Amino acid sequence: MAEPNTLEEIFQRYRRELNAELRAIIGESPLPLYQMLRYHLGWVDQEGNATGIGGGKALRPILCLLTCEAVGGTYRQALPVAAALELIHNFSLIHDDIEDASPQRRHRPTVWKIWGVPHAINTGDAMHVLARRALLRLAAWGVASERILKLAELLDETSLRICEGQFLDMSFETRMDVTLDDYLDMAIRKTGALFEASLVAGALLGGTQQAQLDAFRLLGLNLGLAFQMRDDVLGIWGHRMVLGKSTTEDIISKKKSLPIVLALEGASAEQTHWLQSLYGGRRIRKADAGKVLQLLDVLCSRERSKALVERYVAKAHLATDSLPIEAKWKDSLHGLLDELVKVREE
Amino acid sequence: MAEPNTLEEIFQRYRRELNAELRAIIGESPLPLYQMLRYHLGWVDQEGNATGIGGGKALRPILCLLTCEAVGGTYRQALPVAAALELIHNFSLIHDDIEDASPQRRHRPTVWKIWGVPHAINTGDAMHVLARRALLRLAAWGVASERILKLAELLDETSLRICEGQFLDMSFETRMDVTLDDYLDMAIRKTGALFEASLVAGALLGGTQQAQLDAFRLLGLNLGLAFQMRDDVLGIWGHRMVLGKSTTEDIISKKKSLPIVLALEGASAEQTHWLQSLYGGRRIRKADAGKVLQLLDVLCSRERSKALVERYVAKAHLATDSLPIEAKWKDSLHGLLDELVKVREE
Repeated sequence: MAEPNTLEEIFQRYRRELNAELRAIIGESPLPLYQMLRYHLGWVDQEGNATGIGGGKALRPILCLLTCEAVGGTYRQALPVAAALELIHNFSLIHDDIEDASPQRRHRPTVWKIWGVPHAINTGDAMHVLARRALLRLAAWGVASERILKLAELLDETSLRICEGQFLDMSFETRMDVTLDDYLDMAIRKTGALFEASLVAGALLGGTQQAQLDAFRLLGLNLGLAFQMRDDVLGIWGHRMVLGKSTTEDIISKKKSLPIVLALEGASAEQTHWLQSLYGGRRIRKADAGKVLQLLDVLCSRERSKALVERYVAKAHLATDSLPIEAKWKDSLHGLLDELVKVREE
Repeated sequence: MAEPNTLEEIFQRYRRELNAELRAIIGESPLPLYQMLRYHLGWVDQEGNATGIGGGKALRPILCLLTCEAVGGTYRQALPVAAALELIHNFSLIHDDIEDASPQRRHRPTVWKIWGVPHAINTGDAMHVLARRALLRLAAWGVASERILKLAELLDETSLRICEGQFLDMSFETRMDVTLDDYLDMAIRKTGALFEASLVAGALLGGTQQAQLDAFRLLGLNLGLAFQMRDDVLGIWGHRMVLGKSTTEDIISKKKSLPIVLALEGASAEQTHWLQSLYGGRRIRKADAGKVLQLLDVLCSRERSKALVERYVAKAHLATDSLPIEAKWKDSLHGLLDELVKVREE
């Protein structure tokens, strides 16, 4: 078989092997608990019939595998950790969907919406364990125990940052004084940490020395922030078809997503007062969500948010340029970056 | 300082060092997320003031440390894994309390009751990560990386069993055909697995060979089952003061706990029909819970449950006798067993 060349071919190859790895990790248990895991991952419908569709975009594992290969490693050796990253991401999604009361994800009802909150909590917990257990599969690839433990430490540290970020994100819902710095502090943990870990894990497994890891960390962090910010823009102005959920959800749930934070920073005393009374009330109705959208327009929140996304994309491109890898891999990463943060709006 | 001799002195010593280990693992972060963790562990009240009281009985870590010492190991080396076991137990309690809608634990409001379900889910997740991260502290005690990975595998396997057990326990709520075998299958995973892991981890760290681990596994399993069964008896006939929660909670939540399962097995067609219509309805009211109690009396469910507890306690004593440890340690374990499964009723 000829070696794949284009970015698309590389991803296809990664995706195929990653899916096989994920299926081996989830296993064949007939216990319905595992059906819920398979449903969330997009492999089966809610009756348990195979869907033939995949789950998410698997960005984090793809970044991990690509990095491993780019630094001269064997990407197959990184499959268990790539799968672990994807499962950590998905465990947090299952729980986030409960915490945010989101009824839909990827155009389908969320786990809690179908099976109820208690089962969804437990399903997320099982996914969390499976993510960690996946790491132990590295031993079969001949990875030294010390290195596996180093990766375990990296993933634990990352999962804890995600919990901290999620805590901050939720605590912002009842606050009206969230600054851009607060937002960044939250997003670095909630989203940045896992992107960072994806790059660092790939580099580590590929044989990169400790002293050279910072460059990968920097790319992961900026990419993660750009990605979260883009998600926040889509969360308000994205097309419902692309998003797979309602676009006013972020406003109704009182999320202090980037456009809201920027609006709060630029609002007049009167506008701030109006927002405070709205967000301080019991719930935000659809009609009021529309008025919030109008205010965001007046305050140029959309333009300012997109400018910030672009700033972090630019930082990510710069970080890519300074990586200790060959030019062709840098090109792949640049291409990936542009693809990832493309803002598809209504 | 003189070496402690009595069981009580040994436990006191373990408890002191275990608490120090747990506090080091939770750390000093001022983020309120960690306040919720400290609250659940009983270290602070809901305003964050130190309580001076501890959390639970720390049975699992004590069993782990005792086993490690009994097989000739240095119990201090086992402190990180003992702490990890306690944190896994507590992570599952935080989530169980949400899943079972339990408003109280250890005479205090549960985490979700104070801070809401979203924060409680996230707090449990953080506890879960901290449990796994605790294992990495073994390296500082000079434990070889291979052994740490073996313990990580044991704990992951155990956490997954707990999720499976929790799944079964919840799925029983909507079923009226739960047999004693079904119950045992659930309890082995939900409770047995962590007791088993406590013994096995202690034995492993103390230097016990793989071939000799089965004896420890057997003790852990039977002890765990006896403990869960005793808990189920207390859940219906325990004194509210001892329990720290309402005694009809288990009936109202439609739990198929041991006394209910035994009643179902012994009920007449008419009694089964009545139970089915009650449990099939929307909710069980306090008055109906009283009638369930009467039926349990008629069917001698209390006596039969207690007989089963005693059977598993006897199995645990037998398993203790066959352990490859000195007589004085067997005496300690026998004493501990009697203490643990004492059924304190109203």
